Amino acid sequence: MASDEAAPAPVPVPTPVPAPAAVDSVAPWKYSNRVLLRTVLERSDGGLGLAGERLVVGGWVKSSKEEKKEAPAPALAPAAKTEAGVAEHKDVSCVELFHTPIPLFRSIMKVFSGSSRPTQHRIEAGVAKQQPPPPPSPPPSIAFLQISDGSCVASLLVEVDSSTAPPSRLPPPIGTCVLVEGTLKRPETQGKHTIGLKAEKILHIGTVDHDSYILSKKRLPLEALRNSLQFRPRTTTVNSVMRIRSALTFATHTFFHDNGFLNVQVPIITSTDSEGSSQKFHVNVLPRKTVPKRDQTVKKESADVSLDAIKAAAREKSKLVDELKRTESNKEALVAALQDLKKTDELASQLEATEKLKSGAPMKAKERKFFEDFFPNETYLTVSGRLHLESYACALGQVYSFGPRFRADTTESPKLVAEMWMVEVEIAFSKLEDVMDCADDFLKFSCKWILDNCAEDMKFVAKRIDKASIDLLQSVLSKPSVKITYREAVEALTKAMDNKEMKIEGGVALTAEHLSYLADELYKSPVIIYNYPKEAKPFYVRLNDDGETVAAFDMVLPKVGKLLTGSQSEERIDSLTKRMKERGVPQEQHGWYLDLRRHGTVIHSGFSFGFDLMVLFATGLTDVREVIPFPRSFSKADC
Amino acid sequence: MASDEAAPAPVPVPTPVPAPAAVDSVAPWKYSNRVLLRTVLERSDGGLGLAGERLVVGGWVKSSKEEKKEAPAPALAPAAKTEAGVAEHKDVSCVELFHTPIPLFRSIMKVFSGSSRPTQHRIEAGVAKQQPPPPPSPPPSIAFLQISDGSCVASLLVEVDSSTAPPSRLPPPIGTCVLVEGTLKRPETQGKHTIGLKAEKILHIGTVDHDSYILSKKRLPLEALRNSLQFRPRTTTVNSVMRIRSALTFATHTFFHDNGFLNVQVPIITSTDSEGSSQKFHVNVLPRKTVPKRDQTVKKESADVSLDAIKAAAREKSKLVDELKRTESNKEALVAALQDLKKTDELASQLEATEKLKSGAPMKAKERKFFEDFFPNETYLTVSGRLHLESYACALGQVYSFGPRFRADTTESPKLVAEMWMVEVEIAFSKLEDVMDCADDFLKFSCKWILDNCAEDMKFVAKRIDKASIDLLQSVLSKPSVKITYREAVEALTKAMDNKEMKIEGGVALTAEHLSYLADELYKSPVIIYNYPKEAKPFYVRLNDDGETVAAFDMVLPKVGKLLTGSQSEERIDSLTKRMKERGVPQEQHGWYLDLRRHGTVIHSGFSFGFDLMVLFATGLTDVREVIPFPRSFSKADC
Repeated sequence: MASDEAAPAPVPVPTPVPAPAAVDSVAPWKYSNRVLLRTVLERSDGGLGLAGERLVVGGWVKSSKEEKKEAPAPALAPAAKTEAGVAEHKDVSCVELFHTPIPLFRSIMKVFSGSSRPTQHRIEAGVAKQQPPPPPSPPPSIAFLQISDGSCVASLLVEVDSSTAPPSRLPPPIGTCVLVEGTLKRPETQGKHTIGLKAEKILHIGTVDHDSYILSKKRLPLEALRNSLQFRPRTTTVNSVMRIRSALTFATHTFFHDNGFLNVQVPIITSTDSEGSSQKFHVNVLPRKTVPKRDQTVKKESADVSLDAIKAAAREKSKLVDELKRTESNKEALVAALQDLKKTDELASQLEATEKLKSGAPMKAKERKFFEDFFPNETYLTVSGRLHLESYACALGQVYSFGPRFRADTTESPKLVAEMWMVEVEIAFSKLEDVMDCADDFLKFSCKWILDNCAEDMKFVAKRIDKASIDLLQSVLSKPSVKITYREAVEALTKAMDNKEMKIEGGVALTAEHLSYLADELYKSPVIIYNYPKEAKPFYVRLNDDGETVAAFDMVLPKVGKLLTGSQSEERIDSLTKRMKERGVPQEQHGWYLDLRRHGTVIHSGFSFGFDLMVLFATGLTDVREVIPFPRSFSKADC
Repeated sequence: MASDEAAPAPVPVPTPVPAPAAVDSVAPWKYSNRVLLRTVLERSDGGLGLAGERLVVGGWVKSSKEEKKEAPAPALAPAAKTEAGVAEHKDVSCVELFHTPIPLFRSIMKVFSGSSRPTQHRIEAGVAKQQPPPPPSPPPSIAFLQISDGSCVASLLVEVDSSTAPPSRLPPPIGTCVLVEGTLKRPETQGKHTIGLKAEKILHIGTVDHDSYILSKKRLPLEALRNSLQFRPRTTTVNSVMRIRSALTFATHTFFHDNGFLNVQVPIITSTDSEGSSQKFHVNVLPRKTVPKRDQTVKKESADVSLDAIKAAAREKSKLVDELKRTESNKEALVAALQDLKKTDELASQLEATEKLKSGAPMKAKERKFFEDFFPNETYLTVSGRLHLESYACALGQVYSFGPRFRADTTESPKLVAEMWMVEVEIAFSKLEDVMDCADDFLKFSCKWILDNCAEDMKFVAKRIDKASIDLLQSVLSKPSVKITYREAVEALTKAMDNKEMKIEGGVALTAEHLSYLADELYKSPVIIYNYPKEAKPFYVRLNDDGETVAAFDMVLPKVGKLLTGSQSEERIDSLTKRMKERGVPQEQHGWYLDLRRHGTVIHSGFSFGFDLMVLFATGLTDVREVIPFPRSFSKADC
């Protein structure tokens, strides 16, 4: 926000074509009238070219100190007050500033927000009521605050004269929220290359109780911060990690969009147990202690009413529907009546089924299954969306999904929590080789995106978390990923066994230690391992012609381990049902999935990419709980 | 894919600058070696400029017919066979084609996939085993198939000579999957402006059982299709709707990314009951019938072991950890040991608490709460992510989330299902006015995106679903949305009461009928209604200075109704806790949320945008279940 009083802008670079003069100023952000710190501090000149600009910034105090002044500051404070039109108040505080008569208040608001606004937009300090009158003549001082607004790693140095803010608030402790209007000024200290701000008005202060605020303690370990998830993103590290996570999210959608994929949101609540896993979360509505046993069947409503009464009601409702249809008067009412009728009909048939059951009359298996809850069947939180995604690949061609997946796994692992975001891909007319290429391209695209778009955050990460992190991303881009078969992987591991104490058993999945040896020590690169023994992979993976291996692959990253698993899926129904029998996967639950093979089956492949693990890889952190906004793990679901 | 035998490409348009000659050809899609139909059919010339190009396409048959030929087709079939190098087989089928010796097979594969691949990439017809030998000399014929691959609305006419495919398969029924290599040719019928394909090789056929395939029936109502969710996207309508949905997904991320927002994935499993709603899904692991009552407390493992034994184990594990730390040998092992120790310690303290309970010793309320399940507290599927998002707005500034939200609502409504995707936004230093602007900009951006990027799909939607749909999107763009206060809305509705039978009661939320009157009849435009009475809105909404209304708003669209709700949130802790008490919202569950006001509170605003309803608005459909890939509603969770 450039006020009229701003210092003259630097002379624009002359250009041969006459054009409107380029003004070196900075615009406030679209939806809050403050300037994002990023737009000042991430300029190539560190914001120095903006010296003299008047603007509003907001943020949280990262550190603060106070310097006593020899004599009261004479020049700036009265000027600032005059601008706000309240020069008649000698010791005006930010609260008093807004207790001005309405017309005057509006003109102040205009300066602040560009428009005069109705009462609900009034700016008020969060602590107005608790604020005692200023103590008698405290010594004048200047507070220096480093504030951060989360838009970039850097913070802005804000100079606050005690005459601008009530002195009892200076210096505000770490975590204090401030909204400040002021003028950008060059640093006085030589060698500093970043602009600072001289505060002229404090528009909002959100105080902190220093003693009970966990971030008052400096350099808390990340592990301790897990108990204060609500404050964790305010730390410089998690702040940076979350910007990288956000960038990776956009990179994901950009990659698939640009490559012609369509996004499909697969269901979270599902009745399909996609991996035959016992580690599932169940979903229900009734509080646990009141849930009746299965086959207790009768709806509560029906216990008190007779079947005849309900049937009579249904007849009445049916008449109403007919009438509404005839008169064509109110479409909404007709829709409501139709739904009401449908519900009554459903209730009638449920009750009928129950009465038959009581009387000993035979009942179909399906009818007997429903019980008193929201869904008539067992429902889970989805473990994987790939099966559902296949249904859309068989119609839209190439699809991807990006959403939360769930595993009720009680083993504690730094790479696994109960709720994780996955990128899932399914491609019709695509074979194992194609989808391995796609997965590798996606990994490389994500790495490049971070290097191109998160330079400052990556510098911070390299400084604070893992100094090899930038090199690691660059190394992924610089060479092709290693592709080896499972057999080749086992051979390499067997060879290494002389030096390492790693037992290797063929025919099963490789352990995390084995994978780490391959990616971290042997190849020092992402490794794709394909053609796994069939025992190691789920039922839907395509059987190779040797009858022993399947067209499945894993991608393993240095440091992180297994990032993704993928496969060509079994398109032949005979082979698929045989595998299901072998694995004890119930066919009745997968009828809809088998249908995709019965009608218009297609060769197709896909993969599941652990998004959270990719954030871990990019940031060099070691526990996935640090990169997830609100991690959920065994016995932990805070907030 | 342009093979060497392709007809010469049209002469490139001459340009003054010498440059590599522009060849009018089409590249296969990156990850499957087939050409996407969109890249042929959505060219401005309908693909005619590509006549003579040889390529591979894949898709599903939308319609088919067969024409008998007078004499056997002499020219094409042998040529095609010669290209594949199997001229010696007289009646070669697509299956036989690949039962060739390996070197020959590899050279065929090279044509198909651009590389020779190991065995698991072998292309095989999905029905190879069931295929009987061809019946004796059937009359020669040509089949005409319209195939669609989901990349666009248009379908491609494919001509298949009976000598190219086994005659028993011609014409393949609707739903059959085909992968075909052939040459693009201009239509013979005058007046047709789209290119067709003459098949030369059938690379894959996925058959259909015509009688049991639901899409064999033409023009099924959408309602009936809800029972066949796995096939629904193959219908032209749902196919188109899902492309629009995908476009809106990318539009969402693009809007927020381009405006400087950061994406935050809020948790799905939560222990915070954000809206004090009783319509929640509970999450648990143990099957419902075995869940013990609350306060039955003891972990299964601990039932068989004594506290002393566990404490001893903890001591042992602690020793191991120390040892590993000393030797610095194996970091992974240390991490594992630390976790193991932590778990043992937890178990010990749980057991201790239980034993205290048994012995009658006093126990803190918190300790008594855990019970035998994955999480120690009650956990729900999130109803809204806005509270969690606030925590990130108070650190990153402007954030958005895009994910599934849940409501266990048993009322049947065409605008509400149990699992819906929401776009949630939270902006620090932002007031009601700002966030209303943001919501309106987002709506307009989404409408424009669809018009700009989904022209063909919108033409189809206008033809088949709602002829006003394009006009409606354009009208949103052409004028500013109406902004009125709740009081103004009530006045307008009261005025209208003379003509309409709509009772209006001040002080409460408006009904769907009221909203529809405002958006559909009175203003014929999106309407933003703000400053609601406080009773109508949740506890976290900011109280206005009148003490009666709150800084909340709804946005209502024609046809769809309420699309989003938003508010400036209450940043003053006194006011917030007072509202919580009034509404009976438990403060202990919201401690973390109140903390955001205790430490560095900030003025902030946000909204929740019903993404599924936006898809409904864009497509002109009337039931939200038609625009959600796998809808979940009361008593319905298929697949």
